[in-house]
Amino acid sequence: MAGLNGGGTSIIVRLEIQKTLITFGQIATAIGDAGGDIIAIDVTRASKLTTTRDITVKVSDPQQTDSIMKALDSLPGVRVINVSDQTFLMHLGGKIEMNPKMPIKNRDDLSRVYTPGVARVCMAIHEDPAKAYSLTIKRNTVAVVSDGTAVLGLGNIGPEAAMPVMEGKAMLFKQMAGVDAFPICLDTQDTEEIIRTVKAIAPAFGGINLEDIASPRCFEIEDRLIEELDIPVFHDDQHGTAVVLLAGLLNAVKLIGKQLENCKVVVTGIGAAGIACTKMLLAAGVTNVVGVDRQGAIVQGESYSNPMWEWYAAHTNPNRQSGRLTDVIEGADIFIGLSGPGVLKVEDVKKMADQPIVFAMANPTPEITPEEAEPYVRVMATGRSDYPNQINNVLCFPGMFRGVLDCRASRITQDMKLAAAKAIASVVSDDELNEYYIIPSVFNQSVVEKVREAVMEAAYESGVARRRSAREQQETGQE
Amino acid sequence: MAGLNGGGTSIIVRLEIQKTLITFGQIATAIGDAGGDIIAIDVTRASKLTTTRDITVKVSDPQQTDSIMKALDSLPGVRVINVSDQTFLMHLGGKIEMNPKMPIKNRDDLSRVYTPGVARVCMAIHEDPAKAYSLTIKRNTVAVVSDGTAVLGLGNIGPEAAMPVMEGKAMLFKQMAGVDAFPICLDTQDTEEIIRTVKAIAPAFGGINLEDIASPRCFEIEDRLIEELDIPVFHDDQHGTAVVLLAGLLNAVKLIGKQLENCKVVVTGIGAAGIACTKMLLAAGVTNVVGVDRQGAIVQGESYSNPMWEWYAAHTNPNRQSGRLTDVIEGADIFIGLSGPGVLKVEDVKKMADQPIVFAMANPTPEITPEEAEPYVRVMATGRSDYPNQINNVLCFPGMFRGVLDCRASRITQDMKLAAAKAIASVVSDDELNEYYIIPSVFNQSVVEKVREAVMEAAYESGVARRRSAREQQETGQE
Repeated sequence: MAGLNGGGTSIIVRLEIQKTLITFGQIATAIGDAGGDIIAIDVTRASKLTTTRDITVKVSDPQQTDSIMKALDSLPGVRVINVSDQTFLMHLGGKIEMNPKMPIKNRDDLSRVYTPGVARVCMAIHEDPAKAYSLTIKRNTVAVVSDGTAVLGLGNIGPEAAMPVMEGKAMLFKQMAGVDAFPICLDTQDTEEIIRTVKAIAPAFGGINLEDIASPRCFEIEDRLIEELDIPVFHDDQHGTAVVLLAGLLNAVKLIGKQLENCKVVVTGIGAAGIACTKMLLAAGVTNVVGVDRQGAIVQGESYSNPMWEWYAAHTNPNRQSGRLTDVIEGADIFIGLSGPGVLKVEDVKKMADQPIVFAMANPTPEITPEEAEPYVRVMATGRSDYPNQINNVLCFPGMFRGVLDCRASRITQDMKLAAAKAIASVVSDDELNEYYIIPSVFNQSVVEKVREAVMEAAYESGVARRRSAREQQETGQE
Repeated sequence: MAGLNGGGTSIIVRLEIQKTLITFGQIATAIGDAGGDIIAIDVTRASKLTTTRDITVKVSDPQQTDSIMKALDSLPGVRVINVSDQTFLMHLGGKIEMNPKMPIKNRDDLSRVYTPGVARVCMAIHEDPAKAYSLTIKRNTVAVVSDGTAVLGLGNIGPEAAMPVMEGKAMLFKQMAGVDAFPICLDTQDTEEIIRTVKAIAPAFGGINLEDIASPRCFEIEDRLIEELDIPVFHDDQHGTAVVLLAGLLNAVKLIGKQLENCKVVVTGIGAAGIACTKMLLAAGVTNVVGVDRQGAIVQGESYSNPMWEWYAAHTNPNRQSGRLTDVIEGADIFIGLSGPGVLKVEDVKKMADQPIVFAMANPTPEITPEEAEPYVRVMATGRSDYPNQINNVLCFPGMFRGVLDCRASRITQDMKLAAAKAIASVVSDDELNEYYIIPSVFNQSVVEKVREAVMEAAYESGVARRRSAREQQETGQE
């Protein structure tokens, strides 16, 4: 669970101090002795006998916080009122806000943005619903929808607890791609109810980003919404992961001089992400994909209760390999892990084809640690930010939605996803490409624009883009 | 429909001009001759033979726009590409946006607001759901929910066309009271489906503002949501109107020295707003309210298909007056119109008690115009901004929601609405109070704070406020 402790590098402790019983110097000494480094002090309240102070302390790990708290608790004349670390402080009151784009300065403004002037705008949309794209927030707004059932690696923690993730995602949407995203966390885990709710709230939005919804209901929810809505619907845990993974793979095989189509790929963890990644590989021309889950390789001829596995068995594993991971990994060019910690052993890596590529993406602990794998693999990627080659959805969703909104795509096709993957891969130039740099950083500023352009081009080619081209707009004065 | 033309004082015309066929001077002359005043010119595109220009023209009314367009159409070498007025321009791309409260500057920030650090915040909320109020946007965020069935006076125009009103409302929420509001326009007009949808999306929100939902379904939707959710639900068309109306009445009777409790009040238009206003009057101590709709006064003993009218008959009209408006208006101290244009005649006003108070709030055309009524009434109010004493919901909802969010009220009680009405009335001092100033302007900056304080006080008294008082917070370090 080491990954869950990330982010906390300083804490703020609120203390009530009895001035007659202790000096601040004694308190500072106690904090220092416990390993903390005081970097700021604010007096929030003072009376004759007591002061209340917020003390900001730099700590290197959560254990240190415990030691500091124990030391403070044992001091006479000190009462700990509250303690917050920086991660919690950044969440106080939430991380996003809604703002007017312009101030209402006077009665004239009010009569334009609200009654009575707004009535003419309403009627214009009523007469031509497509005008919602020019006269409302629809053209730049995405709903980030979750039911809180599969949040990060935390499982079914509910809609309230899912909000901080969705708010964080909304921040990234805006900062990276200028997209206005709003979190919708649903107080229902019923497939039909989720579908109905998303359809009911859809009018305000130009796209729907589904997030952290448990398998297998995520498949039906996405499929039905794609079918029944005229705006793009994208389950990021499936397709975002698949797009970024393919981007990494494209550069990895390029580096070692293999053809992706000819590679044998073994995938562990055949849940939502595993299936989406496999579909992406098949779309990219790979033919020999072997999926492995807890009971072994998925193979045609077996019968599976999960209908997605029936599909999987029919479309993968052409050589009908059966057995456990350690059996089917033999001769594989590429390993893709979307399962759990420690699933891939060093002995398994040794059985792979030459120049093995290992994408071990279980979070927070990968299928095999880079330290163990290092001597035997050629290229290694994980889902973590503290190792090279992080496969992070943040590389895909901002540019993907920027693109679909800008061309008013009605849906996201497989070609658009492929185009996004190639665009992400293309950000790493041939000169830069090496074992430790097959995928750009999430802060690389050219990723969004490249993804956007590629997605739009593919959308126009697939006939799902509904916005006129720039030249047509110029000529007709219409969007 | 005069009221619907508000807001358009300048237009922007995009013209493609063949330079060999016409000069800009000729075009400017044609616009001037048609009554337009050119105030800005922008060249958006130029080639050897043509230029494309955006010309901003001040116009005094929409008819003038037509004359200008006709004049331009008849000119050789001029093609009108597009024309927009300022109201439409202010709506381009929508009027609100979602912003991060802080930038994600580096990997450290990213790991705090998003994975992996965010996981600790999610788990804190999972363990104590009340923490959603401190660690997510819930404590400052309101959903503005409409099904688009009763938008302004426009009727059932649908969810897309309702968006500009809801966006305008969100602007007002933020500018006036710092409340983050998000518009949810529903693609369903089914009562049960609306209730289910609002319940499903509720976790992110600290309150629900229902808006422009047709009667009678608005009653059941509001009642059920109040019962089934633990956050305040407020149908603004009903209660916002009722609160502001009562505020105006309190000052009107104060001005003329009558006691509100002793007044006979006649209400026309017994829809959602009429019923809410009547309930408010009864709560304020009025006993003699007579409601009049199309078939005449609502009176006990008659049978009504609308269950709300059955309730109305049982709770109003203690003297069982029957007949039409012109009959029951006899001796009334106060007329409240929530019906339609021209419903109240000068002869009716003449039959009222001495110093008649007339609130004619039909929009855009009141039950009687202030010009007609002026010689016979003592105090007159309307829903319009171009006459004195505008009864405008904007005086209520920002402060009301600021108050309920700040004390985390679970619902809005009748006492809280009464307190809000008294607070709005109190903004007009005794020195200022006169026939043309019984209600503060929507831009009066003390309204929100006074309403907020009064609402919070009433919420603590009614036991619906869930936030600890400031002193308790200081002592416990918890909210």
